[in-house]
Amino acid sequence: MTRIVLDAMGGDHAPTSEIEGALMAGRELDVEVILVGPEARLRQELKGHAGGTDRAIHVVDAPEVITTDEPVAQAVRRKRNSTIRVGMRLVREGYADGFVSAGNTGAIMATAKMVLKTLGMIDRPALAAVLPTVAGKPAVLLDVGANAVCKPFHLLQFAMMGDVYARTILGVEAPVVGLVSIGEEQLKGNELTREAHKLLEQSGLRFAGNVEGQGIYAGKADVIVCDGFTGNVILKVSEGTSEMLFEVIKQEVLKSVPTRKGAVLARPAFEDIKRRFGYEEFGGAPLLGVKDVCVICHGRSTGRAIRNAVQVAMELCQKRVPERIEAEMAKLNQDARLSQQGVEA
Amino acid sequence: MTRIVLDAMGGDHAPTSEIEGALMAGRELDVEVILVGPEARLRQELKGHAGGTDRAIHVVDAPEVITTDEPVAQAVRRKRNSTIRVGMRLVREGYADGFVSAGNTGAIMATAKMVLKTLGMIDRPALAAVLPTVAGKPAVLLDVGANAVCKPFHLLQFAMMGDVYARTILGVEAPVVGLVSIGEEQLKGNELTREAHKLLEQSGLRFAGNVEGQGIYAGKADVIVCDGFTGNVILKVSEGTSEMLFEVIKQEVLKSVPTRKGAVLARPAFEDIKRRFGYEEFGGAPLLGVKDVCVICHGRSTGRAIRNAVQVAMELCQKRVPERIEAEMAKLNQDARLSQQGVEA
Repeated sequence: MTRIVLDAMGGDHAPTSEIEGALMAGRELDVEVILVGPEARLRQELKGHAGGTDRAIHVVDAPEVITTDEPVAQAVRRKRNSTIRVGMRLVREGYADGFVSAGNTGAIMATAKMVLKTLGMIDRPALAAVLPTVAGKPAVLLDVGANAVCKPFHLLQFAMMGDVYARTILGVEAPVVGLVSIGEEQLKGNELTREAHKLLEQSGLRFAGNVEGQGIYAGKADVIVCDGFTGNVILKVSEGTSEMLFEVIKQEVLKSVPTRKGAVLARPAFEDIKRRFGYEEFGGAPLLGVKDVCVICHGRSTGRAIRNAVQVAMELCQKRVPERIEAEMAKLNQDARLSQQGVEA
Repeated sequence: MTRIVLDAMGGDHAPTSEIEGALMAGRELDVEVILVGPEARLRQELKGHAGGTDRAIHVVDAPEVITTDEPVAQAVRRKRNSTIRVGMRLVREGYADGFVSAGNTGAIMATAKMVLKTLGMIDRPALAAVLPTVAGKPAVLLDVGANAVCKPFHLLQFAMMGDVYARTILGVEAPVVGLVSIGEEQLKGNELTREAHKLLEQSGLRFAGNVEGQGIYAGKADVIVCDGFTGNVILKVSEGTSEMLFEVIKQEVLKSVPTRKGAVLARPAFEDIKRRFGYEEFGGAPLLGVKDVCVICHGRSTGRAIRNAVQVAMELCQKRVPERIEAEMAKLNQDARLSQQGVEA
C-alpha cells in the first residue's frame, strides 16, 4: 500500500485541516498516512475523532515547526527537526513513498533539494499547478512559485517535465507546450521569454509559441511554462478573479425576486462549477524535478483539499512520475541533442 | 468642446469598430472626434452610416498604418505618416486635446514619448488599467504593458501617478497603494519587488505592502503597481478566467431543465455583470506620464469599447490629468524628499 507523509503543522489551519484530511484520505483512499508533528498534541487531537486510532493513520514526532513568515535559509538550517525535514527523511529513507505539506513553500523547496535531492538532469525543481480550461481538459502550468527568478534553460526543463506530467498524469498523448508572454508574437515579452522561445522551438517538444491569459483558459496548450513569479501571479489572479465573480454573481442575483428564484434553481450548477474550479479539488501542486514525490498545498487548505493532495501524491507515486521524468529527460535530451551544457553555452 | 483624435486603423476590426465608436461618441457625448487614417477610405465608409457627415466627426488623412506584428523601432522610424504619428502631432500642435488608439501598443508608446513627450519627472510612462473589485470601488493597476522590464524607482513613479489618477478620476480621497508580489511578506518576490517595497515604504504614499491576486480583487488597494510584463499578464489572465467561467456557467446551466429555467430568470443579473466586468466598459487604458492625454484600447475593441475609450480620454482632458500629475509629482517628490536622483543613487 502507498504511504504518504503529511506535514501536520503546515497550513493556516494546522493541525485541524491536516487531521481532517488524513482521516478522510484514510477512509476514502487506499493509502496509509503518516502525520508528522508534535506527537503528544497530534495524538490528543486524533483521539477526538472517529477513526483517529485507525491503522491507516500513523504519527511520527517532529517537535519543530517552520512558519510561513520565517526567513527560509535560516529556518531550514536551524530547525533540523522540523516537520518538513523529518517528513522528507522518512520518504528518503524508504519508510514512505511521498510527502505532502501546506507549509512554507520556500522551506519545503529548500529542504526537498537537500533531503530528497534534485534529479540529475534538472537544475531547478518546479511547482506544477493543474488548471481547468474551457475545452474541458486540464492544463499544467509550471513554475507557480518555486523559482521567482529563472533562466531560459530552466523554462525549457520545466517544459520537458510538464510534458512528462501531461502524458503520465493527465493522459495527453502528445502534449502541446505554450510559453506565457505578453502578446502572441515571438518578439514580445522580456529577455527571458524571447530566449526561452528560441530554446523551445529547437527542443523537439510540440511548441505552440506564446500564450496569454485567454489562451491558457481556452486550452491552447497542455503544458504552460513561465518563471515562478509570473506563474504564482497567474494562479492567484485566477483565484481572485473567480472568487470575485462568484461573489458578485451572488450579490447581483439576490437583488430581484426573479433572479433570486433563478439562482435557487441554478444553484446545483453553480455548486458544481465552484467545486470543479476551486483549488480544493486540485489538492496540491507537485514539486517536479526532485527524486521523490512532493506535493505542496495552499496555505489555507481545508481538510478536503489536504485529502485531495494526498490523492495527488498517491497517483504520482503509483505512476512513478519522478522516475519517468528522469527517463524521459534523458530521452528528450538525447532526441533534441540539447544537453544542459549545450543550452547554457 | 473637447476634441479627441481617434486612430481609425488601430484595432483588429479597423476601421469598422473605430467608425462605429466615433459615431456613437459623436451622438452620445459632448465631443468632437477626429478620425485619422486613409482619407478616401474613411470618407467612403462614413457615407454608409447615418451621422457619418455629422459636424462632430472630422477626418484627417494619414496614409500609413503600423500593424500589430511589426518590429516597433523600425516601424516608428520609417512610417512618418502613420495614423499614430499624424494623430499625435495634431494633439501636440493644439488641434486636439487627446489621442485614442487600439493599435500596436509598442508603437503608440514609442511615438508618444517622441511626439507628446514624457513629463519632466517621469522616466517611463505607464499604461493604467481600471479593475473592478468585490468592494464595488474600482482600482487602478499600472503598468499593464508599456514597460516589460522595470527598475524599482519606475514602480515608485507608477505609484505616484496612480495616486493622482485615483484621486482625480476615481475620486478616492486618500488612495491606498499596493505592490504586486507573490506572498504578502516583504521578503517574498524578486529583487524588483523587494527594492520597490523599500522605496514605497519611504515614499510618503499610503503604502499597504504586497498584494496578491485575491487582494487586488478584494479591493485591498486603490492603486496597484508592478512591471508591465506582470501587469499585462494580470489583465489577460483576469479576462481569460472570467470568460472561461461565464462560458462554463452557460454550459453547466444548460444541462438540466431546472437549472436552465433558473438561468433564464437570472439572465438579467448575468448580463449586467458581464457588462460591468468586461473590458468594453472600461474602454481603454490611459498612458500616464506623457504631456498629453493618450488612451490605448484593446486590439479587439468593439465600437462600444472605442466609444468608451473616447469618453475616458475626454475625462482625462477635462480633469487635466497630465498637468495634475506633473504638479503632484513635484509636490510628492518634495514631501518625500525623494528626487529621482536620490532614488537612483
